[in-house]
Amino acid sequence: MSKRDDEPSPEDRLIEKYFRPIATHPGAFGLADDAAAIAPPAGCDLVLTTDGVISGVHFFPDDPPQAVARKALRINLSDLAAKGAEPLAFLMAIALPENFAPGWLEGFARALGEDAAFYRCPLLGGDTDRSPGGVTVHIAAFGSVPHGTMVRRAGARPGDRIVVTGTIGDAALGLVLRRDKTAAERWRLDDAMRQHLLDRYLVPQPRNAIAEALRRYASAAIDVSDGLAGDLAKLARASGVGIDAAVEAVPLSAAARRALAAEPAVIETILTGGEDFEIIAAVAPDKVEGLRAAAASASLEVTEIGVAAAQTREARFLTRDGRALAFKRPSYSHF
Amino acid sequence: MSKRDDEPSPEDRLIEKYFRPIATHPGAFGLADDAAAIAPPAGCDLVLTTDGVISGVHFFPDDPPQAVARKALRINLSDLAAKGAEPLAFLMAIALPENFAPGWLEGFARALGEDAAFYRCPLLGGDTDRSPGGVTVHIAAFGSVPHGTMVRRAGARPGDRIVVTGTIGDAALGLVLRRDKTAAERWRLDDAMRQHLLDRYLVPQPRNAIAEALRRYASAAIDVSDGLAGDLAKLARASGVGIDAAVEAVPLSAAARRALAAEPAVIETILTGGEDFEIIAAVAPDKVEGLRAAAASASLEVTEIGVAAAQTREARFLTRDGRALAFKRPSYSHF
Repeated sequence: MSKRDDEPSPEDRLIEKYFRPIATHPGAFGLADDAAAIAPPAGCDLVLTTDGVISGVHFFPDDPPQAVARKALRINLSDLAAKGAEPLAFLMAIALPENFAPGWLEGFARALGEDAAFYRCPLLGGDTDRSPGGVTVHIAAFGSVPHGTMVRRAGARPGDRIVVTGTIGDAALGLVLRRDKTAAERWRLDDAMRQHLLDRYLVPQPRNAIAEALRRYASAAIDVSDGLAGDLAKLARASGVGIDAAVEAVPLSAAARRALAAEPAVIETILTGGEDFEIIAAVAPDKVEGLRAAAASASLEVTEIGVAAAQTREARFLTRDGRALAFKRPSYSHF
Repeated sequence: MSKRDDEPSPEDRLIEKYFRPIATHPGAFGLADDAAAIAPPAGCDLVLTTDGVISGVHFFPDDPPQAVARKALRINLSDLAAKGAEPLAFLMAIALPENFAPGWLEGFARALGEDAAFYRCPLLGGDTDRSPGGVTVHIAAFGSVPHGTMVRRAGARPGDRIVVTGTIGDAALGLVLRRDKTAAERWRLDDAMRQHLLDRYLVPQPRNAIAEALRRYASAAIDVSDGLAGDLAKLARASGVGIDAAVEAVPLSAAARRALAAEPAVIETILTGGEDFEIIAAVAPDKVEGLRAAAASASLEVTEIGVAAAQTREARFLTRDGRALAFKRPSYSHF
């Protein structure tokens, strides 16, 4: 008697059960091939990015699987948004510990499928591995822009206004709340404020709604992942301009304002903590209003925080009395 | 005095030092942007795949960094090869433990750059993270085929001959040698044989040289990553055909033949162990010679091992007396 080896392996069954339903693109071949195939849109450039989330580094082991899925996809979508690209599809490599709960994967896959549908970014293929540690999720996302129109980091010109979407610092403050149970009381946050900050850390809100407006109005852009200060500095370095930003102008949520009033030192967390997944853009003065209007039609606020100048390739945060803020650690770095 | 925050972070410096030199594609923007951009070749489909290697799962923590880099890229190149695709570029996410040695990364990056140049598959972008465990490397690779010509798993037809490149089982036997210090003696391997098997485990040899020939001659293909038996079964399932392969016909290296003669039970390791990164193809009878000749011109042997039939979607290995082999674990599975 031969044992039949035509049955799917446990790994194949896991892929079929959880991920095949969200691999709706015909080029995904139902996740039953070595690779996926897509015909790229005519006249377009492909925009490609990859970012991973690792348990214990980018999320807490007890974060809900839905949040892990959304964060893993959205941090990649945020890169596409900053480049003015429309999402096309993504690949995902997930590594799971031996003892993962089936319910975990179910929640993960359902949320991933919801986000893939909402952002019109279908799962094209992937890789499923065992992890000797915690869960890791690595996504490579692809978008498209009309040929030659990707919004670069390197395009800012002297005189450009520096704007930022949404509010800054919430995710970093949310992370502090996760680690320090006394912070919410110290900052005199009410429950809604506390929840707002926690949510902003847990589930990023990528700004894909303004991708087309960035192509139209921005001379340069970057998404805020490593902190406003550090990412502003990257934009300045890449563009060969200096940037002066006004601390006072940085848009803050009510929760962040409350925390800052109670503990002025959190300004460093706000400006350097990262994971905002807002977008910094450099915009010629006569285009600021156009960008603002386009963003408003997507219910997104855009705030002017500074200006680019033909000087050092330095980014500074100036207080009301003209002092430049000094940071202990200007940018998030894994090393 | 303000601390200047215009200096690259340690993470940025690491990227600039080790990875920027191998990101030679202009669309990589010197790894100094949020994403990469490429203009896809006109009239082509993009072929996309992702695979990761994880320390302690896909390689040993003390494997040389050069081998880790080559394995990480080549297992992805092997998927492109099996689909008949020419490599275009890749993205890489690498996570490193806090205490990694700078020399490790130097060796890794140098070998990665050599492979990227050799296979004409430049680094387009990536992500660098801290790993709470060992090193993990996740690569997403992109290739191209003329529109509609990707070689599928699902294309095998009854009557097609089943062929395989190179030799089977070497990597799996090499892995046994790594784990069982007595095996080399038990199998009566000489030093060259032992080294051959170890090398085949350590550094795959993807068969990208026959990608174009596969598009021309193969009706279906898959690369052998989870073991010949399991991957043959996948091809059979996807194509809706049965496959009978002759155990005797499976091409073996001198080292594998020696091990098999000494210990007949290793036939299971050979046929199900995986990581061969050879290519199984289904080929119409009148096209076998064409594929063989094209492969020969790339110094690669192609061996006929079986035939596809319009019956069950089962893959069987038949011994000389017509018995079907039974395997304890027909295919590698992470779960």
